[in-house]
Amino acid sequence: MIADEKQLQEIDSAVQVMFGSLRERTLTLMQKPFSVDTKTSQNDLVTTVDKANEQFIREQLIKIDPHSRIIGEEESYGHQIAPSLVGHIWIIDPIDGTMNFVRQRNHFAIMLALYIDGQATLGYILDVMNDDMYHCWRHHGAFVNRQQLSAPVELPLSQGLVDINRYLLLSNVHNLQDVARQAAGLRMYGSAGIELIHVFTGQLSAYISRLKPWDLAAGRVFAEELGLDVKTIDGRQLSVLSSNTVLVATKQASQEIGWLLK
Amino acid sequence: MIADEKQLQEIDSAVQVMFGSLRERTLTLMQKPFSVDTKTSQNDLVTTVDKANEQFIREQLIKIDPHSRIIGEEESYGHQIAPSLVGHIWIIDPIDGTMNFVRQRNHFAIMLALYIDGQATLGYILDVMNDDMYHCWRHHGAFVNRQQLSAPVELPLSQGLVDINRYLLLSNVHNLQDVARQAAGLRMYGSAGIELIHVFTGQLSAYISRLKPWDLAAGRVFAEELGLDVKTIDGRQLSVLSSNTVLVATKQASQEIGWLLK
Repeated sequence: MIADEKQLQEIDSAVQVMFGSLRERTLTLMQKPFSVDTKTSQNDLVTTVDKANEQFIREQLIKIDPHSRIIGEEESYGHQIAPSLVGHIWIIDPIDGTMNFVRQRNHFAIMLALYIDGQATLGYILDVMNDDMYHCWRHHGAFVNRQQLSAPVELPLSQGLVDINRYLLLSNVHNLQDVARQAAGLRMYGSAGIELIHVFTGQLSAYISRLKPWDLAAGRVFAEELGLDVKTIDGRQLSVLSSNTVLVATKQASQEIGWLLK
Repeated sequence: MIADEKQLQEIDSAVQVMFGSLRERTLTLMQKPFSVDTKTSQNDLVTTVDKANEQFIREQLIKIDPHSRIIGEEESYGHQIAPSLVGHIWIIDPIDGTMNFVRQRNHFAIMLALYIDGQATLGYILDVMNDDMYHCWRHHGAFVNRQQLSAPVELPLSQGLVDINRYLLLSNVHNLQDVARQAAGLRMYGSAGIELIHVFTGQLSAYISRLKPWDLAAGRVFAEELGLDVKTIDGRQLSVLSSNTVLVATKQASQEIGWLLK
């Protein structure tokens, strides 16, 4: 069942209220000891806070949008994700940047997106420690704390800052070290949500990383709304429900990076 | 003329008051158009705000500590710095992370240090946009907003985050790409002040960069007070008044990085 505009408005309002509670709950959970486990590698972490947040979001979404399908990082991790894009699909990242959450208690995000028949429709990115709520509704604008974001300024790569994932950079796939050299500066923040926010606000001209569905789902709503390029680095079709090596960038940075890639 | 403890206390209080004005002035200057010039390269920027801040700090220091010598990034840049370390020497970085200041309006710092007969004595780092004032007085403790910092926790490199300067990393001098691979994560914030703050609060285990006197002067006061290693990467004597490739790290991270360096 697909929501009409008015129903979508109600869903959106309810989700924004939920994010208020979610932030309070996260800050409270951070005050107490929490346990940390590893997933695929010693740098792929999950904490009891990730799990508690995802559980809470799922419970709320079932009430807010009962006939939807819900995909969350922690429950879906390692499981096959059914490829159908029909109807409402919510995609949850309960703590994005778990390494930062554990080591820095800072620089992490909570992300949520609604895709309707495969179309990126609603996106939410909460920078928890800065208390900055980024919100985007397709064709209705992108906002931070209710202040509308405009399309990031176009700069030549030589004047813009880029953020490239560590593994991609060190292995120099696609000649990315040359991209890092040509840019005005290289930044790495360690959380896709935090990094994407910097692109949306014009603080970075490009972000290149290997991203899972929950790392990109919310950000893609903003990127499309703000007229940014969002695509796989080798020009393949970007799939909502699989992992991709993704470039999110202003048009000019994207074009100049394209010339350097091998 | 060397200040005694009571005089130093008065100097320190006056400098802290000055930093309050400095933050307000900087925020005001950011609201208006300012001009940007390049120094040694197109990524080495200076703005009229850098110059105005340095001028203001100099004028205040002449009143606060009249018989001192003052070295500032903008006035001293490209000039020979007299090597004497006798007496009171103030070292100013009026905007640290000027590229971030220009492109991001965020993630930059104002730094100031007092060296007495070559000894790192007072250090100030203001994270302007977060309004976090870091303050350290040798043997009197390191503080953020009057809350005392404790020595950062010791972690194996495999569990700690490291921050390495882009040029050093991409040229792989000293085998630094291996250091980046062995760490739990790689971060780059683009301002020595912001990066050093992350080491002092335990958010980074190590920071490695090529630093000029004003990039390191304040941070060195904190690093020594907090029991961190602060040294040149190739084990040479760290000089206050020259440029060095510097490692600032917890003891354990420093030791493990030492094993990897070539």
